[in-house]
Amino acid sequence: MAVYQLNLKNMLERANLFFARKEVISREADGFLHRYTYGDYYRRVCRLANVLKRLGIKRGDRVATFAWNTYRHFELYFGVTCYGAVLHTVNIRLSVEHIAYILNHAEDQVVFLDPDLLPVMEEVAPRLKTVKHFIILSDHVPETTLPSASSYEQLLAQEAESYDFPTLDENSPAGMCYTSATTGNPKGVVYTHRSIYLHTAHLCFVDSMAIEEKDVLLPFVPMFHVNAWGIPFAGAWMGSTLVFPGVHPTAEDLARLIQETKVTFAAAAVTVGIDMLKVLQHKPYDISSLRALMLGGQATPEAVIQAYQHLYGVPIFTAWGATECSPIATTVHIKSYQQHLSLDEKMKIRARQGLLSPGLEMKILDEQNQPVPWDDQHMGEIYVRGPWIATEYYRDERTKESFIDGWWKSGDIATINEEGIIKLVDRAKDLIKSGGEWISSVDLENALMSHPAVQEATVVAVPHEKWQERPVACVVLKTGEQASEEVLREWLADKFPKWWLPDKFIFMDQIPKTGVGKFNKKALREMLKNTG
Amino acid sequence: MAVYQLNLKNMLERANLFFARKEVISREADGFLHRYTYGDYYRRVCRLANVLKRLGIKRGDRVATFAWNTYRHFELYFGVTCYGAVLHTVNIRLSVEHIAYILNHAEDQVVFLDPDLLPVMEEVAPRLKTVKHFIILSDHVPETTLPSASSYEQLLAQEAESYDFPTLDENSPAGMCYTSATTGNPKGVVYTHRSIYLHTAHLCFVDSMAIEEKDVLLPFVPMFHVNAWGIPFAGAWMGSTLVFPGVHPTAEDLARLIQETKVTFAAAAVTVGIDMLKVLQHKPYDISSLRALMLGGQATPEAVIQAYQHLYGVPIFTAWGATECSPIATTVHIKSYQQHLSLDEKMKIRARQGLLSPGLEMKILDEQNQPVPWDDQHMGEIYVRGPWIATEYYRDERTKESFIDGWWKSGDIATINEEGIIKLVDRAKDLIKSGGEWISSVDLENALMSHPAVQEATVVAVPHEKWQERPVACVVLKTGEQASEEVLREWLADKFPKWWLPDKFIFMDQIPKTGVGKFNKKALREMLKNTG
Repeated sequence: MAVYQLNLKNMLERANLFFARKEVISREADGFLHRYTYGDYYRRVCRLANVLKRLGIKRGDRVATFAWNTYRHFELYFGVTCYGAVLHTVNIRLSVEHIAYILNHAEDQVVFLDPDLLPVMEEVAPRLKTVKHFIILSDHVPETTLPSASSYEQLLAQEAESYDFPTLDENSPAGMCYTSATTGNPKGVVYTHRSIYLHTAHLCFVDSMAIEEKDVLLPFVPMFHVNAWGIPFAGAWMGSTLVFPGVHPTAEDLARLIQETKVTFAAAAVTVGIDMLKVLQHKPYDISSLRALMLGGQATPEAVIQAYQHLYGVPIFTAWGATECSPIATTVHIKSYQQHLSLDEKMKIRARQGLLSPGLEMKILDEQNQPVPWDDQHMGEIYVRGPWIATEYYRDERTKESFIDGWWKSGDIATINEEGIIKLVDRAKDLIKSGGEWISSVDLENALMSHPAVQEATVVAVPHEKWQERPVACVVLKTGEQASEEVLREWLADKFPKWWLPDKFIFMDQIPKTGVGKFNKKALREMLKNTG
Repeated sequence: MAVYQLNLKNMLERANLFFARKEVISREADGFLHRYTYGDYYRRVCRLANVLKRLGIKRGDRVATFAWNTYRHFELYFGVTCYGAVLHTVNIRLSVEHIAYILNHAEDQVVFLDPDLLPVMEEVAPRLKTVKHFIILSDHVPETTLPSASSYEQLLAQEAESYDFPTLDENSPAGMCYTSATTGNPKGVVYTHRSIYLHTAHLCFVDSMAIEEKDVLLPFVPMFHVNAWGIPFAGAWMGSTLVFPGVHPTAEDLARLIQETKVTFAAAAVTVGIDMLKVLQHKPYDISSLRALMLGGQATPEAVIQAYQHLYGVPIFTAWGATECSPIATTVHIKSYQQHLSLDEKMKIRARQGLLSPGLEMKILDEQNQPVPWDDQHMGEIYVRGPWIATEYYRDERTKESFIDGWWKSGDIATINEEGIIKLVDRAKDLIKSGGEWISSVDLENALMSHPAVQEATVVAVPHEKWQERPVACVVLKTGEQASEEVLREWLADKFPKWWLPDKFIFMDQIPKTGVGKFNKKALREMLKNTG
């Protein structure tokens, strides 16, 4: 008897069978909320599968999305994968060169794109080698230079609202996401039905993200960024209400949506979480429906965790992962015998990246490839492996640099405490090596951001003749606040060894960010390399 | 790159790595509680694997347990499976004939047994063809006629406390359980590492059993009965505290253990739940630590659900499943939009068997093999399939009667309401067919048990010349209570059509039960067949 295959179809059909009355909500460009049920959703996903068939998409073909977080993008999540094609979610914030590279490298056959992103795609299109159709996620086709452009809604309208989804080999590719590389082109990671299924399952564990039917989930994190951390899949499977923030969402949109739709769990980049704090200082949106706010993409400063807890009673949910991890590999966990700790002590645990997800294996190796002791002092690089950890980059020679015996070598540096809870110290490439010793840029940043006058801060290495590298701090002050270099150095002086203190403090209006909202340290290093 | 294999090893090693300080508690014969940590547990499991190696057990060999719920049995759960052998948990309540049959049929190589079960095994032993070793779960070997008997503790003491557990093909057999058949020998079901892993994962979903680290779990349901419903596996993986009730546990032991160890989730047969209510009437044990009491094996009478809710504030957790389902296939679920319902209405939902587990497929077919409408009126037989549903009986021709195209034909009759929540009506074989129409014995039993004077009641079919079959009720009254046949018939008269009312009411001291604690309707039908 053949083994029953793990397919995303089970999630889609469960949403339709048992939660047909539950809602999917999506912010429209005009601010109004588009609402329909999972029953409506399912019928449109069926229509979409019929569209893919009509377009001649074959099993295993790559189908690109170039889109914001909307209900239509969510339709593509299940429509493309359950049809048997591969959902390739393309980061809309990449350069034209990189977008063209990854569409060609993935050999995408179709691109589904939001109308406001037409100008970028028009620039990309002449370089594309495999794309046969551009489908605009709207009621009609706007004026465009794109060849073979059609309207999503017009295509859907022509098709039947039922579809007999196939049962696929669970190791069939279902999704694809490219991750930026330190140098060179982005690297592709392929997800299978099995890997997404098992990743999604663990998101529904009480001791992981605890996604359940009664949740109202708001994935603010882009759907082109590792499947919005898996939340749309888990939401459909459990029948949770899903709320999509739509095109060009701001931190204020996030706050307003939480208030209006009574969101219980939202997920966003740390930088968005910081921005929402600013919004809330001026406009008192009610975010009390949140059981947790998940922030990721980089370590969340303790000051941010404290602000959400003390001002709004909202616990910050931390985690660690990456494109290669589907993306979740650790989540915050306060053990049962730590429940007596004070709120402050618990927030210190929340500021860490948490406990390894059930199902995965982890090791943290020092420069001699030896496991670091669980003393929270020794730093090492995180390696992980497991059912939803990638084992290669798609058709890419750089596989051999990052994957060793089934382990993914993350490039992230961490310590681990006696409870097995990791703390991200830095990206390997962001660590500052001064006089043969490591300085954690993240620790310095967190300390700086806990200063009342500081809005954002980042610390990068600049080359130094004598010490090899030295830290330089880039600081954005809050509007109307003042703080001199001396004041900030003094603020750090009692928290760190003297040789950790930045050589310079550079005040900026804003810190440059990457396409996924992280501090762009690569650009800053480049900018500052001659200042040492 | 090979696909990462789902192995039970991940659960065992996670318990040891991250929850080494958490406790495993086990009631000793003298009532004292044996306590040790998952760290201690892990080292003993390693010793056990070394014992298996020394005994010459090969990968895939069947290893039988014949034991109560104790920490040693729990050691076998992971020791045998992670070593690569097959954990065959044998029901200690079966007849000597059936025990001999299944040990021979499974070709068990070793039997691990509790000392008080020696007399039974001594009777069984002369009939056994493959068993080479009997290992007594105690400090020493009591006097016995068993050949090759040795002491578990003495064997463990000789071995090293580390073991390099192999990574197994996930489709390797890990466990085995025989289920009683209506006629003939018990039928064997084999569980794989993959099937147990995926079943366990879903027990940790918020919307399933919601097992988490902070739980204190008490599997009162025997560990020889479908792996105590999977609770020991889930508990270890999440690092929950586990409490085992030991040898010959009574309903009073259950109540005392809940009070003493602050159990949050206990699981037992419905009959045990009924017995504990009696205990609590006389001795006010504190069971308020329970977030839920899971009762299974048969439908839980609404009166029992109400008593636990109203008297003790404890919600009853219902589910449906079987040996063939690992065993959980549905669990109680009150949807988010039903939260406004009254406590009484919610208890009515709790009296149903719940919602299909995420990952499974279900269909309910009428006598014409057509899906029944979701109207809660039409009855049909439940079919299920999925990653933890068996697809065959082990080396058994009866496979073809019960498995069709990957679906297991359960023999259980249910209705399904518009929310997709099933309600068990009866076992197909327990349904009463009177004048061409079906009568649900379960509905009649529940109504009888809601009468204040009734302790237990069961209804079975007896042959009838004119109507083919007619219902007869067997009733146990509460101590000191009185109720005549006329009173009970009157009690049912306004709840059911006249032709449903039992022809006779037979008053008994107790209702005969099966080896797994269910009402033994087969024996009753035999007893009553000439009374119609």
